Amino acid sequence: MSHARYDFASDNVAGAMPEVIEALVSANDGVASGYGTDQISSRAADLIRAALDADAEIRFTASGTAANALALAMLAAPHEAVAAHEHAHVCTDETGAPGFFGSGVGLIGLPGPSGKIDPIALRAAFDQPDVSYRQPVAALSLTQATEYGTVYSEAALRELASLASGKGYGVHLDGARLANAVAAGFDLKSIAAMGVDILVMGGTKAGSTPTEALVILNKAHARRLDARLKHAGQLVSKGRYLAAPWIGLLSDGAWARRAAHANAMARRLAEQMPFDLLHPVEANGLFVRMDEAALERLRGQGFFVYRFLDGSVRFMCSWATTPELVDELGEALRKIA
Amino acid sequence: MSHARYDFASDNVAGAMPEVIEALVSANDGVASGYGTDQISSRAADLIRAALDADAEIRFTASGTAANALALAMLAAPHEAVAAHEHAHVCTDETGAPGFFGSGVGLIGLPGPSGKIDPIALRAAFDQPDVSYRQPVAALSLTQATEYGTVYSEAALRELASLASGKGYGVHLDGARLANAVAAGFDLKSIAAMGVDILVMGGTKAGSTPTEALVILNKAHARRLDARLKHAGQLVSKGRYLAAPWIGLLSDGAWARRAAHANAMARRLAEQMPFDLLHPVEANGLFVRMDEAALERLRGQGFFVYRFLDGSVRFMCSWATTPELVDELGEALRKIA
Amino acid sequence: MSHARYDFASDNVAGAMPEVIEALVSANDGVASGYGTDQISSRAADLIRAALDADAEIRFTASGTAANALALAMLAAPHEAVAAHEHAHVCTDETGAPGFFGSGVGLIGLPGPSGKIDPIALRAAFDQPDVSYRQPVAALSLTQATEYGTVYSEAALRELASLASGKGYGVHLDGARLANAVAAGFDLKSIAAMGVDILVMGGTKAGSTPTEALVILNKAHARRLDARLKHAGQLVSKGRYLAAPWIGLLSDGAWARRAAHANAMARRLAEQMPFDLLHPVEANGLFVRMDEAALERLRGQGFFVYRFLDGSVRFMCSWATTPELVDELGEALRKIA
Amino acid sequence: MSHARYDFASDNVAGAMPEVIEALVSANDGVASGYGTDQISSRAADLIRAALDADAEIRFTASGTAANALALAMLAAPHEAVAAHEHAHVCTDETGAPGFFGSGVGLIGLPGPSGKIDPIALRAAFDQPDVSYRQPVAALSLTQATEYGTVYSEAALRELASLASGKGYGVHLDGARLANAVAAGFDLKSIAAMGVDILVMGGTKAGSTPTEALVILNKAHARRLDARLKHAGQLVSKGRYLAAPWIGLLSDGAWARRAAHANAMARRLAEQMPFDLLHPVEANGLFVRMDEAALERLRGQGFFVYRFLDGSVRFMCSWATTPELVDELGEALRKIA
Repeated sequence: MSHARYDFASDNVAGAMPEVIEALVSANDGVASGYGTDQISSRAADLIRAALDADAEIRFTASGTAANALALAMLAAPHEAVAAHEHAHVCTDETGAPGFFGSGVGLIGLPGPSGKIDPIALRAAFDQPDVSYRQPVAALSLTQATEYGTVYSEAALRELASLASGKGYGVHLDGARLANAVAAGFDLKSIAAMGVDILVMGGTKAGSTPTEALVILNKAHARRLDARLKHAGQLVSKGRYLAAPWIGLLSDGAWARRAAHANAMARRLAEQMPFDLLHPVEANGLFVRMDEAALERLRGQGFFVYRFLDGSVRFMCSWATTPELVDELGEALRKIA
Repeated sequence: MSHARYDFASDNVAGAMPEVIEALVSANDGVASGYGTDQISSRAADLIRAALDADAEIRFTASGTAANALALAMLAAPHEAVAAHEHAHVCTDETGAPGFFGSGVGLIGLPGPSGKIDPIALRAAFDQPDVSYRQPVAALSLTQATEYGTVYSEAALRELASLASGKGYGVHLDGARLANAVAAGFDLKSIAAMGVDILVMGGTKAGSTPTEALVILNKAHARRLDARLKHAGQLVSKGRYLAAPWIGLLSDGAWARRAAHANAMARRLAEQMPFDLLHPVEANGLFVRMDEAALERLRGQGFFVYRFLDGSVRFMCSWATTPELVDELGEALRKIA
Repeated sequence: MSHARYDFASDNVAGAMPEVIEALVSANDGVASGYGTDQISSRAADLIRAALDADAEIRFTASGTAANALALAMLAAPHEAVAAHEHAHVCTDETGAPGFFGSGVGLIGLPGPSGKIDPIALRAAFDQPDVSYRQPVAALSLTQATEYGTVYSEAALRELASLASGKGYGVHLDGARLANAVAAGFDLKSIAAMGVDILVMGGTKAGSTPTEALVILNKAHARRLDARLKHAGQLVSKGRYLAAPWIGLLSDGAWARRAAHANAMARRLAEQMPFDLLHPVEANGLFVRMDEAALERLRGQGFFVYRFLDGSVRFMCSWATTPELVDELGEALRKIA
Repeated sequence: MSHARYDFASDNVAGAMPEVIEALVSANDGVASGYGTDQISSRAADLIRAALDADAEIRFTASGTAANALALAMLAAPHEAVAAHEHAHVCTDETGAPGFFGSGVGLIGLPGPSGKIDPIALRAAFDQPDVSYRQPVAALSLTQATEYGTVYSEAALRELASLASGKGYGVHLDGARLANAVAAGFDLKSIAAMGVDILVMGGTKAGSTPTEALVILNKAHARRLDARLKHAGQLVSKGRYLAAPWIGLLSDGAWARRAAHANAMARRLAEQMPFDLLHPVEANGLFVRMDEAALERLRGQGFFVYRFLDGSVRFMCSWATTPELVDELGEALRKIA
């Protein structure tokens, strides 16, 4: 096989779903005022507010890393820190962006099984005394679905958020794969109610061209928001092209519907997976125990996948993953198992 | 007239040209590796290198402000400063983004007629003694075409760049409207030869969906470039969507050809402009003397335009501006003159 | 004359007054807990609160630039700006430190005669509309005494502070030469009442070893203050050595009394000054019209002084300036006039 | 016992040694030019260069945290990282200051026994592939003496430094307790030869008023150094007061001689320590196994000490620790053991 196949390497290797492309092309007509003041941006924001059943200031960025880092910089001062799962994307995969956006803001990595923060560890972090030589916690960053393809129950997420709110700390929700969580049963309308201050709602991995929605539920953090985004290099002049995909994603339910497909493909792969699964398959990813020799053999079969933070090998499905492709991978896995 | 018409408010109010949309749609097929490692990104970079006749590291950002600010942060340390025209976009329209990306890097605004830096003023800035209490110049930022719709001759631009290079200082070229300069006769292949270290080559205002090319001609500044972009929130996972437009812009010359149209529309408007022009019309913008009452009357006619930094009123044409629209505006202007 | 004499070059060329040295030596005895938690730091803070007749969180830094920059970073977010006199120290003599401490926070320079902000200009700055492409004002920085050796009346300072407070903006007072203002009649107890949020009270130029008091009158800005200082490299472990000078400065009135001497020396010099004074001599500095040839002749007489921002030549007196030295300079000036 | 006694809580609880106070008082005479351009600063720098037998640019800061953080920001770009022992002061006790000074620069904590970096772990960190989503190593930070009171052999330190230099990475040496290492036999003149780029040479813990020497051995990092310090709030106007202590420390060998006394006091305490020592006592600190009940009993005896990062309880000796005090503590410890 001549080329590496990235189909299962990540859910960002897929293109954009037809609904998104149609919305983009449709948004291309005519003149629009700049910097997100246009009507397409307004309509996209309305759709998100309706989906969340909440008021919010909403903007769109091309990068989830940027949206997350900006959110954390809004919730914690430079001399403070944000608590997150030790394997959360903000801790391990965003190249220190929170420190850049937050002028050195700290991160405190917390343990917990399958990407979910252990509430006992969170309490312990919150119980640390304030001392001058350590950045004290000021905010909590949650991830739904988690980095390990698991989905917090509403009650579990609420417990963590409440621990933070109860201390007067801010709450950020990294929703890069929120669509997959919703497809797994998580209620989008619970987010505002449980005290999340800032949500980053993922478009890209759900099947869009690059766009993430920065959803500021607690408007105390939205002062002069456009200037803040522009200052941080996150306000594009032709804002409609970051907003339009959301019309495609949300106006007819494609966002969650296609995430349900991705989740189903993950389950289909799980059913025929000859390697041990290390985490429950609740969203669109699988994490398996596979030694280096087996991984090499799999790559020899043409499939490129990553070894992940906990040592497992990760397989991601997306809106574009077909049953045929899953079965093809399943066959390759059985060959090398 | 019920709605404000933004047609001449900026060249970023237009949509994307058909060539860009076609390239985007075409790029949507299939699987692509992430973070700019895909083949579409490679091909777009090749096209830019060919157009510039120069080797370079090339990346794509959604925001010109971000690309400019990152470039300045590469060329000057936080305790140093960048010299630029006092009305350059980086000085007046980017919300202090250079200071954010450059951890407080300074800007030194230089005078000069019609947006062009006066070489005498630049020499004077370079001749300032290094003192501990002032951020010393370390780089020069040029803009082509300028904020006032004028175009430096190759000789004039080379003189300024050489003054900086001769001091060992870096040179940045903000090419948000480089296409308009090229359409006006500026030679793209002269840029690398005159010692520009980093070029930001504009896609958005030229008629693309959001994309700017960060062209690092001096590779000494490209160390670990992808990590640098990611850290700064400027590396999108589905990189192909920022790269593909360049295939549409450059593979058949649309970038410069459509800029020539925008320039022609500006000349057409100039010919029928009843207000005094304050700067030569060399690219796609006009700047006229118009008092507040006249501006209000124009807005009453439905046309929304901005009063600019030098007190003039600005009219911008784009690839999408039609002769009919120019004539309609001309008529409105004659009515209110 | 073999060596340049810096006696009038600045008020920071003098050593420390005896009261400060005695307090330092006395503070050296025994063991003290670290990072400003010691009893000397407590007593110094008490003395300052008593002098200001106000409650406040108080810390000590070795650098006035650091104290000012930290204060501005507390009062304005990175995407916002601080309005100050265009020749204020924070704008012109601190090497862009506000941008470093404030992650790119902006500065807006305002005009006004003899270093005093013109209230009309301040109103105009406050009336600027919020737009995404410009850092909007969020705070006001005042300087008392001003860079040009003038002293605001209490009413004038209150008017400016009120304009800011009325908008909900923060107020910073750079008091590097506050002692000289107090010696000129300004009431220290008026500061808290007029709505100053953060005062930097100058020790160094008043005649101390390096120490400035960061006086946070609005405690909303003091959250986790020690961590904030440590994070910014401004919390020294042996805090007593930055605090003790204040016991020497304040416990017996030396701070203002010796500033009165400095002011008197400035008046003495003014009386015999053969060059035109460009600003009223209200504190400890003189600013005179002197062409380059005359300045060279003066330097030939051994006296090194600076040409200042407005083109004048500046002479500064300090607690250590003697009448004999003033008269010696006067004679040299008359020779070269 | 009415007050907590901090005598063994840290080596920064002691006052300044007589040699330092004498030098300070002596430096107080007369006029001196500002910002470190004075002759006392020159002489102090000369003494340090002589002690190191190396050329270097030398400046003085009041805070070791600031000096370290500035050094790391010079050696690694914001999107890069610095490798250090996981319990190094820069990682655990400086409130994220490297991230503040370095605009989000990363830290990579390495394991190793008793505060010494394991060379195998360092090689492994250096062998990590460059990827866009992780801050790659660009520099190494060493600590001598270590946080656990141990002293690297010259060969061991050289091995680590060479691993970094061999990769083209910068090397920082945190010498907050360098005097104690020298007193333990480490050769000061070996530092420059082994490729250290920037040394922070500790004055404060050695028995000075606040001062640390920022020693830039690799002058490529010293460009516009005074502006860099000023920008970062680290250039005091009356520079002589941060320099003069070094004349007291170095002109007659007090720096190392009094550190030898501190080390001897630590050994004296070790000889009578009834609790298990967890690290070799090679400098001025002891780390013992002590449960919470015993620590409480010790505090009941009046002695305040800290539980440290590895769970041990730390006792620090200083130049001011007397044999009588050590024996008094020893007696208290035997009572509660």
